[in-house]
Amino acid sequence: MTWGGTVTTKILLDESRLPSRWYNVVPDLPAPPPPPLHPGTREPVGPDDLAPLFPMDLIAQEVSGERFVDIPEEVRDVYRLWRPTPLIRAHRLEHALGTPARIYVKYEGVSPVGSHKPNTAVPQAYYNARQGIRRLTTETGAGQWGSALAFACAQFALECEIWMVRASYDQKPYRRSMMELYGAQVHASPSRLTASGAKILADDPASPGSLGIAISEAVESASPDDTRYALGSVLNHVLMHQTVIGEEALEQLALVGDTPDLIVGCTGGGSNFAGLFFPFLREKLQGRMNPAIRAVEPDACPSFTRGRYAYDFGDTAGFTPLLKMHTLGHDFVPDPIHAGGLRYHGMAPLLSHMYDLDIFEAEAKPQRECFEAGILFARTEGIVPAPEPTHALAAAIAEARHCAETGEPKVILTALCGHGHLDMAAYDRYLSGEMEDHTLPQSRLDEALTTLP
Amino acid sequence: MTWGGTVTTKILLDESRLPSRWYNVVPDLPAPPPPPLHPGTREPVGPDDLAPLFPMDLIAQEVSGERFVDIPEEVRDVYRLWRPTPLIRAHRLEHALGTPARIYVKYEGVSPVGSHKPNTAVPQAYYNARQGIRRLTTETGAGQWGSALAFACAQFALECEIWMVRASYDQKPYRRSMMELYGAQVHASPSRLTASGAKILADDPASPGSLGIAISEAVESASPDDTRYALGSVLNHVLMHQTVIGEEALEQLALVGDTPDLIVGCTGGGSNFAGLFFPFLREKLQGRMNPAIRAVEPDACPSFTRGRYAYDFGDTAGFTPLLKMHTLGHDFVPDPIHAGGLRYHGMAPLLSHMYDLDIFEAEAKPQRECFEAGILFARTEGIVPAPEPTHALAAAIAEARHCAETGEPKVILTALCGHGHLDMAAYDRYLSGEMEDHTLPQSRLDEALTTLP
Repeated sequence: MTWGGTVTTKILLDESRLPSRWYNVVPDLPAPPPPPLHPGTREPVGPDDLAPLFPMDLIAQEVSGERFVDIPEEVRDVYRLWRPTPLIRAHRLEHALGTPARIYVKYEGVSPVGSHKPNTAVPQAYYNARQGIRRLTTETGAGQWGSALAFACAQFALECEIWMVRASYDQKPYRRSMMELYGAQVHASPSRLTASGAKILADDPASPGSLGIAISEAVESASPDDTRYALGSVLNHVLMHQTVIGEEALEQLALVGDTPDLIVGCTGGGSNFAGLFFPFLREKLQGRMNPAIRAVEPDACPSFTRGRYAYDFGDTAGFTPLLKMHTLGHDFVPDPIHAGGLRYHGMAPLLSHMYDLDIFEAEAKPQRECFEAGILFARTEGIVPAPEPTHALAAAIAEARHCAETGEPKVILTALCGHGHLDMAAYDRYLSGEMEDHTLPQSRLDEALTTLP
Repeated sequence: MTWGGTVTTKILLDESRLPSRWYNVVPDLPAPPPPPLHPGTREPVGPDDLAPLFPMDLIAQEVSGERFVDIPEEVRDVYRLWRPTPLIRAHRLEHALGTPARIYVKYEGVSPVGSHKPNTAVPQAYYNARQGIRRLTTETGAGQWGSALAFACAQFALECEIWMVRASYDQKPYRRSMMELYGAQVHASPSRLTASGAKILADDPASPGSLGIAISEAVESASPDDTRYALGSVLNHVLMHQTVIGEEALEQLALVGDTPDLIVGCTGGGSNFAGLFFPFLREKLQGRMNPAIRAVEPDACPSFTRGRYAYDFGDTAGFTPLLKMHTLGHDFVPDPIHAGGLRYHGMAPLLSHMYDLDIFEAEAKPQRECFEAGILFARTEGIVPAPEPTHALAAAIAEARHCAETGEPKVILTALCGHGHLDMAAYDRYLSGEMEDHTLPQSRLDEALTTLP
């Protein structure tokens, strides 16, 4: 089989085409998203409430009404280490599926840490450094976000302290090593370094931890004057930073004269999906294209498809403001599926609002179908996907198979938000036949939702 | 610190600039390399002797006198999944070193398996498939080559059977998982599936294996009519396939108007180093540039700097032809340094010949200096290097520091032949202070050399 060099495989952009602005979707929406509330007063939180946690530039971005925000040159200089990222036309996958669909994959795995997370870690580190902050704290589950922030802090000479969910800390030592390699300090969570961690350990000395607990510890540790907290997803400014993904993809698709019929992304907190589709939504709202847009989540943690749209805490201990979002309840602990980055009880408030406005659709997938898609992708296109984006690949493949039946030459765009070289144990489990699906039982969901504040 | 977008970080080539020919350095040398010899007769081996092991196209390439060999379109189509690879100007590393030197890094870690190995795995699989071969066998140490061949076999619907050194099989399960993900069958070596493996196990049931033993098993298994053997380094055709690295780098440096003063690469079997410098040597021989060229090897396995230039076997059991090369003796087992890809007793015969002709220089490095260089690179440039190329980075950094003293603005070119995301355990060991250097004692070397045939 050969295409004889007549078709492009990777659509590249020169560094000179690196986006110079992030896109803020909020002013283009028919209604603004509901504000975060103070848990005590139930009044909207203001900049002063957030100032102990975030630098002022990021707080301003969080509530900005500007459609575009300039990307500082210092941030673009770091982005240039790996951006613009390639857009891949998945010819070999299409051939294997016998589909007339054209599948495009925006590949973020070429970043130094192998995922899309540095797109926001870098500006977050930059704005903190510019404000004279000395140290950042954060949490990490499987370690993708922690390694991105550790890398970013190394670029701007910030100290970095990371609470890593105990289960991952023990089972995934390589991600911890990567954070330490970049100079970060890593603690297993729950830890005895914080009151919230100590309280959990007092109740259960063998607690495996959770993302919600780790967030509580990192937030608690951010109180001193020279320390702030960084969050890797969920917030408006994080989603905005990720729009470099979609801006580049928009330009890359234009280079080959295609517009998408379907945009599909995986969602944990939602930043990778948002970063991909927001710029395309802008074009859609202006009548220049009309893609269907779809979020894919794991059926073990189905915030969009089965969660409640309600005010809830972002963490387990209840330190964060109340966020209106699709949630499974802030002390819900999802089953241990291998897509660690999708195991969060909530969803970005901005995306939750947009889902409520029917701007996009959502579906949930069991993990074995996703791993099967990941293996097909690896055997055809070479790249081993991280478990998270296999959810989007599974949906793209299902759509392409449908096109094979109907004959429709649909253009499908998806984001491959990271490579899976640090997730081989999960593939091993799938290949050995030991992997199970973990559909959330209704009774457990009902019980979890009773904890909503 | 910002460069304000005024300087390029990544020098990219469009897919249309993917090389269309491999460069064969042999006809440009003042004398041809000594031929491989039949171990029984000590006569040069001919195509018929090699035909049970390799397809005819590769045998023809192995002895070719043509300066250029066209790359089949089917191979270029697969190369396009990741090639051309970026050439990175390491501004941040230069800044950290305070050097006037300009450091360029040709980065091969963007390939699906994270190293330069698919550059030859893909054509090897292609030529075997074209000859109607059904199955390939090979050996792998740490797993880089095995995953590359498994990926390549998946592209051309070949079965792939891999003998993986027992010590790595047990300690590095993730590389094994990657090979299986691509559909390969992986055995720990020594195994009871071959006579040579069974013999080793009879003497030592707990044998940790070695690359030499695994080669014996893979070669032994390649005898049936429909099965051939594939080697990931050492041979002329392998080195030639890797010249896509140097051809691209030559064009990329020309785009920014630089010519190298020093080219430095790490050497195990030598294919990555050869692939980088052969095209530059061609330009040097034609008087268009005059770079110094330097190989860097681990001081635990110093084939160039302390080995003997003599005829020796490529494997432990003595199944291969005799190759004239810099060798430490075919049953020498290097200390367990973390750069698994550099732990081979011999060196490519073509490179050994060129070293004997003083075409390049060589030095040996202890592993701690190399890991220190790898960490400095990661903290400045983001990419975590595999342990093997940290040897070349250490030499490039030493040269750049020297330039900081002399004020010379030298242009240094090196190859970063793979990322280290699957080698985090090694970095962990370095960071915890537990890593040791392993300089080879003279008495052990003397003893190893007594086994030369």
